[in-house]
Formats: sequence, structure tokens, C-alpha cells
Amino acid sequence: MAVTFNSVDPRTGAPGPAYEEATRDDVRAAAAAAEQAFRAGRLADRDARAAALRGAAQRLRAAGDAIVEVCESETGLPEARLRSELERTCGQLEAFAALLDAGDYVEAIIDRADPAAQPIPQPDVRRMLVPLGPVAVFGASNFPLAFSTAGGDTASALAAGCPVLVKGHPSHPGTGELVAAEVSAALADAGLPAAAFAHLLASGIDVGEALVDDPAIAAVGFTGSTAGGRAIHDRAARRDVPIPVYAEMGSINPIVVTEAALRDRAGAIAEGLVASVSNFGGQLCTKPGVVLVPAGAAGDAFAADVAARLNGVPPSVLLNERLRDALREAVDRLAARPEVRALGGAGRRPGSDRDGFRHQAAAYEAPAAAVADGSELLEEHFGPVIVLLRWRDRDELHAALDRIEGQLSGSLHAQPDEDVADLVEALAARAGRVVFDGFPTGVAVTYGMQHGGPYPATTSPLHTSVGMTAVRRFLRPVAFQNAPQHVLPPELRDENPLGIWRRVDGELTR
Amino acid sequence: MAVTFNSVDPRTGAPGPAYEEATRDDVRAAAAAAEQAFRAGRLADRDARAAALRGAAQRLRAAGDAIVEVCESETGLPEARLRSELERTCGQLEAFAALLDAGDYVEAIIDRADPAAQPIPQPDVRRMLVPLGPVAVFGASNFPLAFSTAGGDTASALAAGCPVLVKGHPSHPGTGELVAAEVSAALADAGLPAAAFAHLLASGIDVGEALVDDPAIAAVGFTGSTAGGRAIHDRAARRDVPIPVYAEMGSINPIVVTEAALRDRAGAIAEGLVASVSNFGGQLCTKPGVVLVPAGAAGDAFAADVAARLNGVPPSVLLNERLRDALREAVDRLAARPEVRALGGAGRRPGSDRDGFRHQAAAYEAPAAAVADGSELLEEHFGPVIVLLRWRDRDELHAALDRIEGQLSGSLHAQPDEDVADLVEALAARAGRVVFDGFPTGVAVTYGMQHGGPYPATTSPLHTSVGMTAVRRFLRPVAFQNAPQHVLPPELRDENPLGIWRRVDGELTR
Repeated sequence: MAVTFNSVDPRTGAPGPAYEEATRDDVRAAAAAAEQAFRAGRLADRDARAAALRGAAQRLRAAGDAIVEVCESETGLPEARLRSELERTCGQLEAFAALLDAGDYVEAIIDRADPAAQPIPQPDVRRMLVPLGPVAVFGASNFPLAFSTAGGDTASALAAGCPVLVKGHPSHPGTGELVAAEVSAALADAGLPAAAFAHLLASGIDVGEALVDDPAIAAVGFTGSTAGGRAIHDRAARRDVPIPVYAEMGSINPIVVTEAALRDRAGAIAEGLVASVSNFGGQLCTKPGVVLVPAGAAGDAFAADVAARLNGVPPSVLLNERLRDALREAVDRLAARPEVRALGGAGRRPGSDRDGFRHQAAAYEAPAAAVADGSELLEEHFGPVIVLLRWRDRDELHAALDRIEGQLSGSLHAQPDEDVADLVEALAARAGRVVFDGFPTGVAVTYGMQHGGPYPATTSPLHTSVGMTAVRRFLRPVAFQNAPQHVLPPELRDENPLGIWRRVDGELTR
Repeated sequence: MAVTFNSVDPRTGAPGPAYEEATRDDVRAAAAAAEQAFRAGRLADRDARAAALRGAAQRLRAAGDAIVEVCESETGLPEARLRSELERTCGQLEAFAALLDAGDYVEAIIDRADPAAQPIPQPDVRRMLVPLGPVAVFGASNFPLAFSTAGGDTASALAAGCPVLVKGHPSHPGTGELVAAEVSAALADAGLPAAAFAHLLASGIDVGEALVDDPAIAAVGFTGSTAGGRAIHDRAARRDVPIPVYAEMGSINPIVVTEAALRDRAGAIAEGLVASVSNFGGQLCTKPGVVLVPAGAAGDAFAADVAARLNGVPPSVLLNERLRDALREAVDRLAARPEVRALGGAGRRPGSDRDGFRHQAAAYEAPAAAVADGSELLEEHFGPVIVLLRWRDRDELHAALDRIEGQLSGSLHAQPDEDVADLVEALAARAGRVVFDGFPTGVAVTYGMQHGGPYPATTSPLHTSVGMTAVRRFLRPVAFQNAPQHVLPPELRDENPLGIWRRVDGELTR
């Protein structure tokens, strides 16, 4: 008899429908089928892949009401947010389809032969990117659509021509199954094999471990906690054949506010900050966790304003019990530190579990100079919690920044006439994205978006999980030397039948 | 008192001059200085880096006689080869300087703001590649110039703007010191800090381990054995902050010969093969180790011809005693297998160690069908040794190819009118480069050259250690969101002051 687990409504703590647990045997079967389909070239047709991505977008939109309804009950996220996230998910699938139409993502390079080259004659060398192989995707609980079953990892891997095996997130199993069904249908509509996509739902870690270990898997995409991402990284590194792991993990997304900016628009900054910290329970990988605020009266007033606003936010529903418990523990540890002061309503907890899994938005404060002593001040608090670090001068500000590890983002609120080169440099040195006079949440899906950063923001500082260059994670270069025209892929033939941009003898051309 | 070790002339086994061993303290000091120089932006001037690379090339050419003389005595490689390798090394440094001049290697992407975008307004996002940080380089023994102290890893990392700490190879310490002195002088001439480059010479593994462990090191480049590369990969993966390891390791570089090609030009193929196998003692990472040859009379004649030619090659001087001993052992293991037949003079050994470290070029033969039984047939033999695998039909040929792991290269000798799509696909599926009607040795430094491949050819199938895209290994993307023009790097400003190619709103332009 099949083993099952139940979804849980985090707004009430009540169990929902039962879902069947995938097994290690299911993983092996899905991975073997994916590898076979891949090796047989059954994902090689770029137009078919583009059609499948567009078809998935169209189908997900059509199934939007049902998906959003189930998703609300599994995540406690509000309908408007989920509708927006669904549209983002669909837009992302379509953007990768457009990337396939344009075709230059293969980064074709042609170096024509030069028999007179020194010290040795130069052969004809033609290089392009080709897909790596089957990819395992671990979706995130906090973006049940855009970073999960049909999220950025899945979209970019399928675009690259890699089969995808999704480890379905147990925090939104019903959402995952609905989405997976639409993706599978879209692949079938486009004539691609069923084995190109699998959704393996499991509440434990066995299935995920089996995926990472499976010899057919060529790369892993992951969005989630630092502990989870690191465990997968380490496991993949120990394989007989190590494989790349693109884990997008924790971040405290520091924000620096200058005195001049505070003088000019403290209220607007506080308003934006509170929204960025508390929207959707603060459960975003780019939620600001630390704000570096000047000491002194203006900073005090700003801190009090932020605290009062957060205090006024109703207790947030968190995605699941585990996250709520982890946040409580982390906040308790933080609040217990002697240098930390709870601001306003911080520390107050909502009622019993009959209210589901909730946490009060809260602000804490500590001297920036204390950062050297305790890394707890720089820990991620996954939820509607912010730490204000108060600095007395630029040296103290820089000393605190220097203690901050790799980040997804760093933000700066400053005045146009201020000299902030040193701050921009300090933020860019440790973050994948530097945001000016704004907030890091709401990562736009643009061609060049960088959603990544040095460890521990990710396990691969060279890559991004949002934006068109995310596709590179699942591609490897192959060069053809002195190949006859007829054996070359169309991307590398003399006549450039696809009309793509290529680098020929060092110059970009089409 | 400083600890020293002596170089050894592999042609005689006689010791040469003594060289001082670097220590773990030297590593820490060099890494800290490199990090400080990097963080202070002292390598940020692209023109200065280009000047330093060109200056290094000029200086290495000027010092060529002295370098080649020492190098001959340390490696036993012939003067003509070393002069050619030195020119290749210089040309490579200059090619990366030209890459800096052109400037588009930063892959600038500009997505202009779109307030009307759905589901959320699109901010202005501008992304480019920036250097990772200090890089540790482990040079190879077999290319004492082009893949060592000032080789491709060093050139590409310096081009990227990363300080370089070379673990000097103990098999050519004097060469390394001479080369390092010229690189350091060139950096000084260009106004770059001394800390941007260090040469740490050591005969043991301590210094290398300290380099991989040092928190200031952001990436590792390595060329050498599978065991060495894997050990570094595993060590780097265990760090508190894991770092990318670009290890270019073993390869058997399979060659497929069709019956039609054999009928047309067996002699020419044998001649080219023997040169590719035996030149420079066969000590090249792209030396063919396995040739898949048809069974039957034409194949028999080809095998006999190859064996006779190899038999006529005088015993090769190998780079050092360790490599010679390892080759002997591996060949003994191979020859002891029941399915393996020594061809012609195979198995014959040159005289005593008074002749230095030598090995006779040799060919062995086995049925391709035996590959399934013993991986020893697919082991790398680092030296002038080749295994001919005899296949009876296409199925047997494919079955053997399917057992071959990731490779730097795969080659195909076929006739223009043959249908070889299946073979090209099989080779491209497991190799970074597919060579037609030629031999994989002599990797040309062209823009798009791919010298890499799936594991165990490398630890990073996404990258190359030769060609202009090698620079990517040491760069990470940073995006600036809604940044005022004056804080943006010139590469990302509206007016494009550097005139580089950029992707603006999805379209390539300058």
C-alpha cells in the first residue's frame, strides 16, 4: 500500500488531502527514462522546446483559478500575490521560449583555419553550448509557483534542452501536482517525451538524496535554506562523478541608509522598508534582514517609526510549522543577546496553534560595533523580522559591512550628491545585486537580472537563478575541430541558417 | 635554516640546483597580501592589466634562451618544443591583453526600466562580470610554460582582475622561478602591486593544501592528474566557504577509425597517430590513449604498422621518476590482462636509471567487446602508450564508446561520404572537443577553443582552460538596480564610453 502524507493549511494548522510519497525506485525509474530520452536526442528540437514552454504558460494561466485556490490553502499566501506570482511564472516560461527563438544563447564561436598561425597552424574551431543532461530541481516553499515545480530552474533547464526531475515541495503538494500536470501536458502537446519532466513528491529527505545521488543526474537546482543547500552541495561533491549544484540559499540582504537620506525622506524609507520586511510574512529570499542606520536622534526616530509600523502589521501566517518554529527559536536567540534591544512590540507572540502558524512582525536594534562580537546579528531570520544596526561613523559602518558574508543583494539609500563610491564597492564586493534607493524584494525577471551571489548566498557565485543567463547553468561548451559542414549543428554552419549572433574570428556578427 | 629540494635532470637522473621550500606561513602571507590588494581595487585598471600581460610576454621572449635552457634540463623536453611552447605562452598572454582591449568579456547587459511591465514594474537593471578574488594556480609538469607559472590559468585569472598565487611545480622549479620573476617585473612595470602575483615553490603537498584552504582564495585552477585534481576538488568542497575548482585532469582522448577511412589512408592515419602518441614522451593531456579500430585484415595491418612505427621510436625521456614509475605500473597491469595483446616491441624496457627516466613507446591491443569487463582498458596511460580496441560492427563500437567517461577530446577518422552522425553524437556527448580527420594533441589557442569536458576530464564541465572564454572561470556577475549614472562602472553607463558590445533591452549593440 502506498504511503501518503497530508498537506496542511498554515492559516489553521488543519490537515488537507493526502498525497502519495514517491520512492527511491520512482527516482531511479524517472532518472533512467530522462537519461534515455536525453541521449536519444528527444529534447533536441529547439522549436518544440519553445512550444512546450509557451504551452505550459498558456495552460497554467488557463488553470489559474484552480491552482491559486489550492495554493492559498497550502501556503496561506494571499490570492493577489499568488495571481501575480502565477503570471510571473508564465512570463518566465515565455521569456525562455523567446530566448530559444533568438537562438544566440548557444554562444556560437567560429574561429576559421589559419595555416600560417604561429607557433602551430590554426585549425577550424567551432564551439557552441549544448545541454548538460537531466537536472534535479528542488523548489522553494516560499514561491510555490515562480521558484517551484514550473519555476525558474525548471524553465531554464527545459529551455537548455535538459530533462527536469522536480522534487515536489511537501509544503504545497497539491499546487505542485496541478502545475506538474500542466507542464507534462504541454510537453506532450509539443511532441516531447513524457520522460522529459517528472514530479516526485515526498515529505522526507530520502527522495531528494536519491535524486542527488542518481548517476543519470547531471546538475541540481535548489532554492531554500543554507543548511539544505549545503547538504546537497556536499552530497553532490562526494559522488563518483561530482555534479554542479546551483543552490540559492540564505541572505540577509543588507541595506545601508546614509544620514543625508534619512534627513531627506526618513518616512518614505521606513514605509518601503516595512513593506519589504513584512509582505508575505517576510518569507522572501531577498527580504532585508539587516539595515545599517546612523546612530543619533534622526536614526532613533527612524527606528521608532519602523518599529511602530511593524507593530501595526497583523501577525503573519508563515508557510509551515517548521519555518514558524525555526523563526521563533532564532528570534529568541537574537533577543537574548545583551547588546540587542527589542523595539516597540517586538517579542510579542500571537496566540495558540489554533490560529495556524503565525509570527508577529518585529524590529530589533543593536550597535553596529557589536557585530564583531556576535554573528547572530548577521543571521538570516526567515520571516517578518529586521535588525537595525546603528553606526556612529563611516569606519564603524565599513567594519560592520566587512563582517557580512556573500549576499543575494545589498541596497543603498543615499542622496544624489553624496560620495558613496566606497559603499557601492563594499556592497558589490559581497552581493550579486546592488539596489539604489529601493528595496531588494520583488526580483524583476529581466534579461540581465542577477539573482545569486557569493557563498553563502549561493553555492555557485558565477551563476544566477533569475534572468535569461540562468540557462547557462545547464549548458556546457563543445568545440568541433575541422568538421565537415554537413556534420555541424546548424548554429555553426558557414551560412548561419538560423541567423543567430555568432563570434566569427573574434568579431560578433550575424 | 630554510629547507630546500633539488631539481632533477630526467635525462640522467642527476640532481640539479637546490630550491627553497615555501611554507604554510608563506602561503598565508601571500594570500593575505593578495586579498588586500584585490579589495583595495589595485588590480581594477584594465589597461594596466593588459599592459602587464603584454609586458610579461615581451619579457618572457627576451629571457627565452635562459628559460629554455633551464627548462630542458628540468623536463628533458627538446629545445624546439620548448621554444614553440614559450611562444604559445606569450601569444596567450597577448591574446588575453587583446580581450581586455576589446572589453566585451564583461558581458554587459542593460535592461532599461519599464514602469508598465506586468506583473510588477521593471526597474533599470545593469549587469556585468567582475573578478572573483585571489586565484590559486597549480601548474602542470608536462607543459612547464604554457600550463604552468605563466600559463593559461595565470593569464586568464590576471586578465579577469584576480591576483594569482602559483603553486610552483617541483618538476621544473628553476623554470618556474625564472618565469615568475618576469611576470612580477611586468606587473611592477605596469604599476600593479607586487601582491598580485606570487610563486610558491614546494615539493610536498602541504603548501598546496594551505592554498586550497586559505580563506582569501576564491577559486583554484589546476592541470594534472585525476587523483590530484579530485583531491583538490574534494578539499575545496569541504571549506567553510566552498570555492570553484577548475581542474583539468585525465583523458584517454578516444579516436574512432572507420573501415572506409582505413581503406583510403591507413598509412597516413598510422603516421599521424604515432606522432600524436609518442611526441614529447606522449605526456600530453590530449594524447590519444585509445583507438577504436575495425577488426579484420585491414585493421590487423594498421595495428601492425602502428606497432612497428612505435617500436622504432627511441625510448622517451619522461618528466620525472614518479611519472615513469606510475606508467610502468599501469602498463604492467594492462599487459597482464588476458584479453590484452602486446603489439610488436611493446613491453620492452630501456636500460637502467643511469639513462634517466625513460619508457619505450608501445601499442597494445584488445577486443572492443572486452571493454565491458575491465575498466583498465580505458585507463589513462600518461606516456607514449596506446591501446587499440578492435570492433567487429557498429554495435560493438557504440557499446565500447558508451563505456567511456568524460573526455577532453574525441576524434573521428572517416570518409566525407560516410554517415557518421551517430559517431559524432557519441563523441560530442562525452567530450569537450570533437576532432575530424586529425589528432587531438596540439590544442590551438583560438577564441572559442574548448579544452575541458565532462568529469573526469575536468571538475567543471561548463568551462575551458584554453581559449578566450577561459576568463569566465574567474568572473562573477553583479547587477546594479536603478543606479545613478555616476556610480556605474563605465561599461554600464548610458553613453558606453568604452564602445563595447552590450546587450541592451535584449539586443546586442555598441
